[in-house]
Amino acid sequence: MTDSGPRRLSESSRVEAFSDGVFSIAITLLVLELAIPATRGSFAHELADEWVSYVAYLAAFANIGVLWMGHHTAFSRIRAVDAGLLWRNLVLLLTVSVLPFPTAVIASAFRVGTPADQAAAVVSYAVVGMASGVAWLLLFRYLARHPGLSDPLSHEEFFRLREPLLTLIGYGIAGLIGWFVSPGLALAIFLVFPIVYVVRVRSAEH
Amino acid sequence: MTDSGPRRLSESSRVEAFSDGVFSIAITLLVLELAIPATRGSFAHELADEWVSYVAYLAAFANIGVLWMGHHTAFSRIRAVDAGLLWRNLVLLLTVSVLPFPTAVIASAFRVGTPADQAAAVVSYAVVGMASGVAWLLLFRYLARHPGLSDPLSHEEFFRLREPLLTLIGYGIAGLIGWFVSPGLALAIFLVFPIVYVVRVRSAEH
Amino acid sequence: MTDSGPRRLSESSRVEAFSDGVFSIAITLLVLELAIPATRGSFAHELADEWVSYVAYLAAFANIGVLWMGHHTAFSRIRAVDAGLLWRNLVLLLTVSVLPFPTAVIASAFRVGTPADQAAAVVSYAVVGMASGVAWLLLFRYLARHPGLSDPLSHEEFFRLREPLLTLIGYGIAGLIGWFVSPGLALAIFLVFPIVYVVRVRSAEH
Amino acid sequence: MTDSGPRRLSESSRVEAFSDGVFSIAITLLVLELAIPATRGSFAHELADEWVSYVAYLAAFANIGVLWMGHHTAFSRIRAVDAGLLWRNLVLLLTVSVLPFPTAVIASAFRVGTPADQAAAVVSYAVVGMASGVAWLLLFRYLARHPGLSDPLSHEEFFRLREPLLTLIGYGIAGLIGWFVSPGLALAIFLVFPIVYVVRVRSAEH
Repeated sequence: MTDSGPRRLSESSRVEAFSDGVFSIAITLLVLELAIPATRGSFAHELADEWVSYVAYLAAFANIGVLWMGHHTAFSRIRAVDAGLLWRNLVLLLTVSVLPFPTAVIASAFRVGTPADQAAAVVSYAVVGMASGVAWLLLFRYLARHPGLSDPLSHEEFFRLREPLLTLIGYGIAGLIGWFVSPGLALAIFLVFPIVYVVRVRSAEH
Repeated sequence: MTDSGPRRLSESSRVEAFSDGVFSIAITLLVLELAIPATRGSFAHELADEWVSYVAYLAAFANIGVLWMGHHTAFSRIRAVDAGLLWRNLVLLLTVSVLPFPTAVIASAFRVGTPADQAAAVVSYAVVGMASGVAWLLLFRYLARHPGLSDPLSHEEFFRLREPLLTLIGYGIAGLIGWFVSPGLALAIFLVFPIVYVVRVRSAEH
Repeated sequence: MTDSGPRRLSESSRVEAFSDGVFSIAITLLVLELAIPATRGSFAHELADEWVSYVAYLAAFANIGVLWMGHHTAFSRIRAVDAGLLWRNLVLLLTVSVLPFPTAVIASAFRVGTPADQAAAVVSYAVVGMASGVAWLLLFRYLARHPGLSDPLSHEEFFRLREPLLTLIGYGIAGLIGWFVSPGLALAIFLVFPIVYVVRVRSAEH
Repeated sequence: MTDSGPRRLSESSRVEAFSDGVFSIAITLLVLELAIPATRGSFAHELADEWVSYVAYLAAFANIGVLWMGHHTAFSRIRAVDAGLLWRNLVLLLTVSVLPFPTAVIASAFRVGTPADQAAAVVSYAVVGMASGVAWLLLFRYLARHPGLSDPLSHEEFFRLREPLLTLIGYGIAGLIGWFVSPGLALAIFLVFPIVYVVRVRSAEH
């Protein structure tokens, strides 16, 4: 809680608390989008039929989970915050907290929609994923230009700097696949992305 | 965690944690008000048609975001809290946590309502924005009268003291514009206000 | 973060964080129970007609707010937690997090119900208020019997020890008034209770 | 906030904050699944008829409550986190945050469903309970294989290591009872499990 820089800088702990709040709420709100069976006599059937919703739920949960892991890593290097960092962080949190929306759209599209509806739904998810990559790029570029806000970058951080670009490209390709090839394939890719991220982080650690 | 004043004063960290919770939940709950398409065959159409909802979502998200930034700045100066500060903070949090309501009213009005409905909706949003300005005024006046609760005001803080009054007047004018001129114009103003705030804070920092 | 007692005791900071989360979420979820107008052409009318919902919202918001203030005060004296304290705290949080339910029941009853429906609704709210008083009594009695968990009680704390009993009796009487006299009067009392609490705490401070 | 190990390790406080957020939100979201009466003239009747929903609510609330208590205990021993621990913690949080779904399914099944629907509903709850046991096993096994992440295990911790296995077996048996014997009996068992847990922890403390 001691002042560690010029007046306009303040320590990052409350930003982390606020961000943790947004991450944990967004990840928990996802459950509200799962449809509760309500037709007498067909609960088991309806629960089983909803498996695409469960896949979309898992993909979005894992996505927010790894976004939080990246935020946790990035902010463990940040020593001070200013207004420019705060609003870029807000843009990032926007892409996190909006994610329950395309997730619910996917669940609805696979429940009642046509293949074209499903394509529109996975594209909306991909757009949010790409927006998240852009938000990370904005944040990292700002940190690179304001070296006083964070610890010097380590080898590990350089690794992570490539992540937002991969996120942007990856979700762009997944969206194209969803639109032109198969919405179901795009959904599978959404689920695989966070797993790939964890595997890559783990191998970078060793 | 050490006592830093008379008995009735306690440190502000738990107030910040509680407030951060309310801010982060309110900002994340906004997403629940976006309507999920459910008409077979028209998902892309419905997603595109909902653009006014997205604008209202962005305006409310940015509004809560800058309210949090202001709270963050104000409480970085606060060293102790008493019951009088706590309930004024609660009034401020009330104006934050109610914001998803007028945001949803705007989305509904632009989806199914008449121009008069849209006018009523943007006025309800403006009233909450004005209430937020009043809550800040109450809080700042209390801090000014109880100098033991906070650090002495700096030049930067004097700048921010003008903000609540500008908020009150700004949302009042936007509400009048929404009622007498154009609800859509008022909505655009709601989106611009938080951007202006960030720009002004940034220029005050330099 | 240092150990300050026998093995089974741990410091209270994470309990406060978890409790703050529940308080801040419950207080923010209340807004979801406000009905969004959806009838073309009558938004202004519907918004105005919903004033009883706003009163119920304010009463519940203020109620959770003062419950948090009491929790904040109580835990500022608590130095260690054990399982017995944790589950009593959970019972208290139960009475907090269930509050959006009777609040929504009141809003629904005054929107579509008969006077008998309204009476049932305010009684359900009063029952939750009484349960909250019982939870506080359990918590305070446990602290009194385990003096190692908290700082010695001061004059101010003795004052607060009377609060849970007043809460229990107050909501009991309000429920009876709601059932036998007037649901609207009971609702007004629900709104007045938190205000009385703040006034009494403030006068105890001076 | 000091570095206490090799580069890839970071202290656990933000993981706890994020986890506390998920626990507190999941436990508070449960209330949204309680059905609000809306039939003019029968509010008291509907409120009383919903008692199975209240039991399911209490069971899920107590379940998340004791899961948090276990998390609190486990993480009080954890001194550092790495990516492997983070994603196992995420899996655990997944089983916590999905719990409002089977709880709502139970409430719906006992409101409108057949005995077969109720059986499917309690089985879905039991499956989530079992998944929670598996997640704990994964987490504890990882901690056992990476002794640098946590304090040496005490007698009390060994006690808790048996808990996940008991959870897994217990919810498996309860699910079988719900499917083959009686859904209502399974629901009663769900409510008893958390109580048994608290009693066992308390006796282990003494």
